[in-house]
Amino acid sequence: MSNDTPNGLTALEAAAAIARGDLTSEALTRACLDRIALRDEQVGAWTYLDPEAALAEARARDAEKPRSILHGVPFGVKDIIDMAGAPTRMGSKIYADAQPEIGDAAAVALARHAGLVPLGKTVTTEFALRTAGKTRNPLRPSHSPGGSSSGSAAAVADFQVPLAIGTQTGGSVIRPASYCGVVGFKPTFGRIPRAGVKSVSESLDTIGVFARDVADAAAFAAILEAIEGPALATLTRPRLAFARTPAWPHLSQAAHKAGRDAIDRARAAGASVLEVELPPAFREALDAQAAIQSYEASRSLAYELRFRSDDVSRALKDYVAAGAEMTRERYDWARNIQASCRAVMWPMFAEIGVLVTPSAPGEAPPNPTDTGSPVANQIWTMVGAPVVNVPGVFGPDGLPIGMQVIGPSGRAAGTLAHAAWLQDALKKDA
Amino acid sequence: MSNDTPNGLTALEAAAAIARGDLTSEALTRACLDRIALRDEQVGAWTYLDPEAALAEARARDAEKPRSILHGVPFGVKDIIDMAGAPTRMGSKIYADAQPEIGDAAAVALARHAGLVPLGKTVTTEFALRTAGKTRNPLRPSHSPGGSSSGSAAAVADFQVPLAIGTQTGGSVIRPASYCGVVGFKPTFGRIPRAGVKSVSESLDTIGVFARDVADAAAFAAILEAIEGPALATLTRPRLAFARTPAWPHLSQAAHKAGRDAIDRARAAGASVLEVELPPAFREALDAQAAIQSYEASRSLAYELRFRSDDVSRALKDYVAAGAEMTRERYDWARNIQASCRAVMWPMFAEIGVLVTPSAPGEAPPNPTDTGSPVANQIWTMVGAPVVNVPGVFGPDGLPIGMQVIGPSGRAAGTLAHAAWLQDALKKDA
Repeated sequence: MSNDTPNGLTALEAAAAIARGDLTSEALTRACLDRIALRDEQVGAWTYLDPEAALAEARARDAEKPRSILHGVPFGVKDIIDMAGAPTRMGSKIYADAQPEIGDAAAVALARHAGLVPLGKTVTTEFALRTAGKTRNPLRPSHSPGGSSSGSAAAVADFQVPLAIGTQTGGSVIRPASYCGVVGFKPTFGRIPRAGVKSVSESLDTIGVFARDVADAAAFAAILEAIEGPALATLTRPRLAFARTPAWPHLSQAAHKAGRDAIDRARAAGASVLEVELPPAFREALDAQAAIQSYEASRSLAYELRFRSDDVSRALKDYVAAGAEMTRERYDWARNIQASCRAVMWPMFAEIGVLVTPSAPGEAPPNPTDTGSPVANQIWTMVGAPVVNVPGVFGPDGLPIGMQVIGPSGRAAGTLAHAAWLQDALKKDA
Repeated sequence: MSNDTPNGLTALEAAAAIARGDLTSEALTRACLDRIALRDEQVGAWTYLDPEAALAEARARDAEKPRSILHGVPFGVKDIIDMAGAPTRMGSKIYADAQPEIGDAAAVALARHAGLVPLGKTVTTEFALRTAGKTRNPLRPSHSPGGSSSGSAAAVADFQVPLAIGTQTGGSVIRPASYCGVVGFKPTFGRIPRAGVKSVSESLDTIGVFARDVADAAAFAAILEAIEGPALATLTRPRLAFARTPAWPHLSQAAHKAGRDAIDRARAAGASVLEVELPPAFREALDAQAAIQSYEASRSLAYELRFRSDDVSRALKDYVAAGAEMTRERYDWARNIQASCRAVMWPMFAEIGVLVTPSAPGEAPPNPTDTGSPVANQIWTMVGAPVVNVPGVFGPDGLPIGMQVIGPSGRAAGTLAHAAWLQDALKKDA
């Protein structure tokens, strides 16, 4: 895919062309729909599309002056997030016949109001947890796209849409972005409003975005936060830190090598690199994140688990069993670990710049229903830090292994600037 | 109202009678429905009732062994909270024709699974914010029941149901409980899952309960948290602290007097009372809570405000305007105040026991559409502390002015034990 058709453009390129009058939102939306028609049988990224409604909305945008720097750009919406006129089915049999929603989730409304065009709903695993939907990795359809934001990652990677919204509770944005070779951005916890999003784990659920360029992701996320977008600084000699985190022993040798390669290439491109160890507070962080997620999910999904269990997958029931049995004391312990890790983040990042570490345990699993492990992402979701997946490194199977750039909470602009720098550095000698 | 009819019983009394076989859930539910039929025109607490469905569920509970200590007890559900088979209308024209929900909110499911009977949906102000619904104060129908959980407070006060669920973002549980003369309990932030509840302000929204007895509220809240209920300790010489908080200058002389009366009566009943000042961190707490709420509400209600504004009240638009205009810096300032206040809570409470202070600026406002000011409650919602409204003190107009018992976050059992003690103390010489 190149820039021959409008769906090959990045979101900011497309919006600029629309603003100049060189492209219409309708033509861009139609190009996306054409690409979907061509590829959907193989990729299966979408669970609901209403092409006529999307085209009508695109025409309405074409009749207006641009409302934002992403005016006229279509985006996909993970199917645990409400979109007016579309059903929210959540990858669950329970909601298979759900009625179209009256309104948008807050994030979708903020994007729509900024002139972006909601294109349709993308496949999610069951309630954004364990059980995969129909989506396959567009880079290699025998492989998984990752999850839980499977369709959003695959659709963006396959040039079916320039932008998509997902959510991350463990690793559901950064990991599928890594497997599909696109940019994923999980902002600081609490910044994009979650109204209208199925709640799984209130202390962890975070809305994030997918794009094919870091600048696109930055612009889109700012719109979803309803803030002024950051002007990404151009860095000349960025400070990066490389850490063997508590996830390191759980990563494959391929991921270890990818991490070292990325660091070597970053150093060659001019970065100063520090090798660091995480503070002791992080030692039990993986267990704490898992405890918080399963305790909260067993409660947030109380209706489905207790009253509709015939229509809940075995894997989900098994997953929440630990949370349902967990003592309040164990949960409180986990929340205290979360608080301790958050407290040491600021001083740590003041010293080290940003952290760079592999986004996933390896390449995409060779089984479309195995969405892989969130182990590389859990800690950073728990502490609420902004995280960007940067593609550009590949494993022995020829599939991508992304690098996650992690910064201090509330400092997304700096984190994104470092990610943009790394993106360019990894393109240079790819 | 006395114990002549089952709807006059407390929730624990009724459930004990059901467990003994002296009462059926069906008879209790029918008594509640009869009371509603008698009083609804005057009080207007309900926005949706399906009597046959509730009676059928009660009969199903009567055919079972008790699942919990509140088995068979009906409860009301504030209409921003989903209940299977009922629409969620949120006091908003936008959702006036909403379809019945497929599933329960998590909290409703947890209660239903514990054998309680969801009776119907209770009136909320528009999106739990400013614009009142039809409910009137059952103690004096010319007056307001308070808000935003107007129907839940009024229905419990009027013996139409023994228990109800509400939510508090500013003062929406404790204030209507004060005005209607019932117990209100807002647990520690984050303890009752919010899945299926309309999100207004993610950093503040807290589910709470209404009852006519502190022990009922404690038992109900534990079920909604999916934890073992606390056995409330019987205190002999409790330590209470009385503080002129930053809200004090905003309270009426009647509230000041009520506060002093309550403290005098508590001292006479054997409490040791300390007069304290709040730490300096609290000086800007009122402004900070207001900033967080309006900033977040302006984003969480993005769809309604941006796409359906013809069906949004003027008062709501005016309210969120400040939040929509607010800088991210101002919001971050407010969140920092929130964090600072939370940090000083633990050492403060270790020293003082629990705080006791008036729950509202005075008696219920003499206008059914003026739900009053949350000023007495905002700080305690912001810090996430457990708060119990205890009735038993009355103002010069003969209407109740409740006392809120405030404890440290995560220590609900101790806070409730103090509230139970104060409830008895204020009954003794009433």
